[in-house]
Amino acid sequence: MGTIAVGVDVGGTKIQSAAMVSEEVAGGHRLPTPLSGAPDVAAAIAEAASKALAEAGAQPSDLSALGIGVPGAIDADHVSVSSSPNLPGFQSPDPVPLASMVSSLLGGVPVTLDNDVRVGILGEWKRGAGRGYDDLLGVWVGTGVGGGLVLDGSLYEGQGAAGEIGHTIVKPGGRVCSDGRRGHLEAYAGRGRLEAHARHLVKQGHKTDLLDIMKKKGRTRLSSSVWAEALEKKDKMAVELIDDAVEALAVALASAQNLLSLQAIVIGGGLGDRLGEHFVRRIEKEMKPLLFVPEHPPAMLTTEFRDLSGAVGAAVLVGG
Amino acid sequence: MGTIAVGVDVGGTKIQSAAMVSEEVAGGHRLPTPLSGAPDVAAAIAEAASKALAEAGAQPSDLSALGIGVPGAIDADHVSVSSSPNLPGFQSPDPVPLASMVSSLLGGVPVTLDNDVRVGILGEWKRGAGRGYDDLLGVWVGTGVGGGLVLDGSLYEGQGAAGEIGHTIVKPGGRVCSDGRRGHLEAYAGRGRLEAHARHLVKQGHKTDLLDIMKKKGRTRLSSSVWAEALEKKDKMAVELIDDAVEALAVALASAQNLLSLQAIVIGGGLGDRLGEHFVRRIEKEMKPLLFVPEHPPAMLTTEFRDLSGAVGAAVLVGG
Repeated sequence: MGTIAVGVDVGGTKIQSAAMVSEEVAGGHRLPTPLSGAPDVAAAIAEAASKALAEAGAQPSDLSALGIGVPGAIDADHVSVSSSPNLPGFQSPDPVPLASMVSSLLGGVPVTLDNDVRVGILGEWKRGAGRGYDDLLGVWVGTGVGGGLVLDGSLYEGQGAAGEIGHTIVKPGGRVCSDGRRGHLEAYAGRGRLEAHARHLVKQGHKTDLLDIMKKKGRTRLSSSVWAEALEKKDKMAVELIDDAVEALAVALASAQNLLSLQAIVIGGGLGDRLGEHFVRRIEKEMKPLLFVPEHPPAMLTTEFRDLSGAVGAAVLVGG
Repeated sequence: MGTIAVGVDVGGTKIQSAAMVSEEVAGGHRLPTPLSGAPDVAAAIAEAASKALAEAGAQPSDLSALGIGVPGAIDADHVSVSSSPNLPGFQSPDPVPLASMVSSLLGGVPVTLDNDVRVGILGEWKRGAGRGYDDLLGVWVGTGVGGGLVLDGSLYEGQGAAGEIGHTIVKPGGRVCSDGRRGHLEAYAGRGRLEAHARHLVKQGHKTDLLDIMKKKGRTRLSSSVWAEALEKKDKMAVELIDDAVEALAVALASAQNLLSLQAIVIGGGLGDRLGEHFVRRIEKEMKPLLFVPEHPPAMLTTEFRDLSGAVGAAVLVGG
């Protein structure tokens, strides 16, 4: 029985692992997410875990347990993926028994699954920027806007769907969200809806360099780095859309703060991490006049592990 | 040492007590809040407590402890009122040692204070409509809009100011709230701001029977019963303003539900109780299309004790 816990964060485009030794990241590996179905995804997870162990100078037999974060719904026993629409090969109506599939590739080691946003927040809370806080909101700004809550020193799940800060109504009747409803935070700050809105504006004849920057980078989507470069170049549309996103985040986070009287809010996710410190300080500034108790604002934090948060948190799931 | 706990809810206009026997209300008394200062308020609290005991068929010596709910800020030891701008005689910058003042009038019985909204929610959670729920939001729609949270089976306080659902931003840049900020729920649903807005519309030349109904009732303010009567008479301004209040409540409560994945929401307070079941069902209906997980909506509840919620909860504070 080994002593090293490894976590793997499975995304729609990449898989990232982290091997934890003494609560520190001792090794990690990243590879692209296979598009060829669940068995290949399981194999890639096992490979990422093994390479993280090797980078930490450890043997396969040193692995104590594996945690996996998946973008989707996990069953109550934390062994199967019930639904993961963004993960290639996981669209079947039947649950995918990912834990046992990966475990059998790693000599029967214990494997536990959880939602990717939840493990990201767990990683930052237990090992990263959120250490020591008992009342913490994590906001993951990526393709969508997810979130998770630590309240009174425990992960808070409510009836199972807690933390959906992305579906805070920031502008009744406003822009359409990924779930078809109007005026949600995610409609203004999620990268998926930001791209849809930018493409809509281009069709209407508005000018922007966003699509040119995307093509020059060899991308087909407006990735976080495309947005970052457009902002650096002061592209008018990019600046205005990110201004809207900052404002929407300020409104949603101020309302959450007024309701929950939190100690801290940590902002992560692909776009949140990429825009980083400057983005978080802008949100903090716009939130302040909206706070009911402005003399006790929450600490506004960037993530410590950036795109490793999920892998670290997945390792924390299994004692890492 | 007695065995009966009594709770007293101190409001800006009335004081209500409840004596609890076997977790049921066995007696109660109501009297107007004295306008002549804190010592007279303390005496009225003691009188309301004694009369509740008498109505329960008990002796003064049967009193085990007294809980008091006060509209304001209470010190951490729950013995003094730090600030209560709406209570006559409690405006001094020094804390008012209300617990010891009342205790000395009642033979030295233990006395504990808490905020009035918090005790109201405690009463409904422990003895009323919210019994058995672990994740519950209480929304008190009165002069302002207050609230409180029970999460994972405990009252949740955050850094001390949790539950301020009234300061959820439902319409950025919208109507001015009691705290001077714009677009808060309270600006649309709190009776104080509703009245201010109605009077503003009247000054602009809009017609309404609200002020006539108020005068006929011998009131100087638009009380909950004035609003109720105007709605019954289908007064256009009253109907439109309460429509706005329902919509604002639906937006704020849907966002809270999406973030907290609650089991239930109980709506009380002077106006909430007066408009009652019909009001709560209207909010429920407008919330539904705004929920991220509409298949698991929160149970939407009226209070069980109506204007006794606070007195019952104050008794619960001390074991009643």
